Amino acid sequence: MEKVKVAVNGYGTIGKRVADAIRLQPDMELIGVGKTSPNYEAIIADKKGIKIYTVKDNIGKFEKSGIRVAGTIEDMVKEADIVVDTTPNGVGATYKPLYQSLGKNALFQGGEKADVADISFSALCNYDEAKGKKYIRVVSCNTTGMLRIICTMNKISKVEKVRATIVRRAADPKEVKRGPINSIVPDPASVPSHHAKDVLTVIKGIDIVTMAVIAPTTLMHLHTMVLTVKDKVNRDDIINTFLNTPRIILVNSSRTTVSSTAEIIEVSRDMGRVRYDIPEVVVFEDSIYTNGNEVFLMYGVHQESIVVPENIDAIRASLGLMGKEESIKVTNDTLGIMKGYLL
Amino acid sequence: MEKVKVAVNGYGTIGKRVADAIRLQPDMELIGVGKTSPNYEAIIADKKGIKIYTVKDNIGKFEKSGIRVAGTIEDMVKEADIVVDTTPNGVGATYKPLYQSLGKNALFQGGEKADVADISFSALCNYDEAKGKKYIRVVSCNTTGMLRIICTMNKISKVEKVRATIVRRAADPKEVKRGPINSIVPDPASVPSHHAKDVLTVIKGIDIVTMAVIAPTTLMHLHTMVLTVKDKVNRDDIINTFLNTPRIILVNSSRTTVSSTAEIIEVSRDMGRVRYDIPEVVVFEDSIYTNGNEVFLMYGVHQESIVVPENIDAIRASLGLMGKEESIKVTNDTLGIMKGYLL
Repeated sequence: MEKVKVAVNGYGTIGKRVADAIRLQPDMELIGVGKTSPNYEAIIADKKGIKIYTVKDNIGKFEKSGIRVAGTIEDMVKEADIVVDTTPNGVGATYKPLYQSLGKNALFQGGEKADVADISFSALCNYDEAKGKKYIRVVSCNTTGMLRIICTMNKISKVEKVRATIVRRAADPKEVKRGPINSIVPDPASVPSHHAKDVLTVIKGIDIVTMAVIAPTTLMHLHTMVLTVKDKVNRDDIINTFLNTPRIILVNSSRTTVSSTAEIIEVSRDMGRVRYDIPEVVVFEDSIYTNGNEVFLMYGVHQESIVVPENIDAIRASLGLMGKEESIKVTNDTLGIMKGYLL
Repeated sequence: MEKVKVAVNGYGTIGKRVADAIRLQPDMELIGVGKTSPNYEAIIADKKGIKIYTVKDNIGKFEKSGIRVAGTIEDMVKEADIVVDTTPNGVGATYKPLYQSLGKNALFQGGEKADVADISFSALCNYDEAKGKKYIRVVSCNTTGMLRIICTMNKISKVEKVRATIVRRAADPKEVKRGPINSIVPDPASVPSHHAKDVLTVIKGIDIVTMAVIAPTTLMHLHTMVLTVKDKVNRDDIINTFLNTPRIILVNSSRTTVSSTAEIIEVSRDMGRVRYDIPEVVVFEDSIYTNGNEVFLMYGVHQESIVVPENIDAIRASLGLMGKEESIKVTNDTLGIMKGYLL
């Protein structure tokens, strides 16, 4: 099989993970990454043998740091069949004209406005609609988490209403200048938060309102959610459906004593996962509670890695490489993504 | 006016604040506080001229620390007309036989089971029902916060349903052995949390489900709440009602730039409030959002001080000293409790 050539423009939290994931795909070749600053991540990429492209003016800086440069970002885009843009929020849109002028397909991340792309994407929800789309936006980590739950619940009974609170992590582990370190911050203070609107870019016809606050932690987001579904549902049916859905894993707190985001991450470290990433949504099984047509639950979202498999699937959808089930299976197998219980 | 004699048994986070508040009331006399360990709080109480009572076996320890002891806790209870029990969770119930045997009225805190008392109490909700009750339980900080909001909303339109998420502070500022410091912890992992049941000990007939998580912060709890009310309500009516309700204050984030628990506390520090206490519920005005019969909002609860005015009012209700409105007014005036905008 001839491999498609993928470029990753932006090499931070998401970009470095997507680049690693691409290198594990049987049908993809990573031709290089775009990086503007010669920091420790660039040094590691170079050591791994990943080709680094940068903007013309910064080539000297990279060479001073002893990092090899393969060319300019424009050179990289020219060589690619598709570009995964993982530049910072809002920067992706400024690169779009370059991708367009060179006639390349491109993926954008959730930090861009929805209209940057032809479609917003979440693999379990709308893979098929994204087939052949030239520009696809992979929604943000929180929206990805919500959509996996909502689209899976939809299989049991139509989700009519969602009321969710998003407790966001304050900073990623590597970030040394972000806070808060001792405050809870409504973010935004106004209701509804943008997450509700973002869910509706992927699935329609749901009455959804979200509220969001930031908490001083780096490990994971945590959502509390109340879903109102068309027909009365059974707790066991929900658990069984989740257990059979890839990219959703359950943690049984009473049996395993894992009952926080810190302990979930510790399990991932003990499992030897690279960077302790958890691309699965992690549902606290004990929190699943039904009350008539309402379903309550709490789950964790690993902000750094949850969108990685989504980006891989979106590449295949955009270029028409595989159907939904096949792509999800290959992505899960190559990245070691689980279903069932965490432990 | 002859003052009623009040003893405070337990002198930690709540006890020391209630003792200070009693000393500010025109109709109350603090006869002393019960304290079992001769720590810095006992030293400060002694310096303030507050009489300290302890258990017989610990008198020597206090004297070694240079702290004067007025007698045993039993001596103190004998002298009192009423005891405010602020001993640790679950300890209050073990003291009840002493209060009973000496024929004293007593208040308990929310950490005790509801059946320790004749009634659970929240001043804005059920002051009148508590009149003359020998044993009253002042509900916990989170429950007090929820009840103030629910009972105030009830005045606008009957509250039929409440769905709330409680983001709890991990530890009080003085606690050096509690966590988490980098995790979000469902607490409990199961739904509903006990807070819903606790609200129902004070007001009946509401369909309420709560979910709770702990976040790594010390300053305040923060709740996100969705109330379903009987009649469609108007955002301005809610704001106006809150502005006219004592013990609820609003913070307008856009106008004042106060948009987190840390900034609320900083305002209290700048105002010169003792210990930076905020016994009011602090509602983020920007978060108030109506959607048909639903009302959404977010508010902060200062865990260390919110129940202080409730304890003062409960003393008056138990001993029949004043009616509801008068007691709340005297408490608010003496403690400097606000209504309206924080700034």
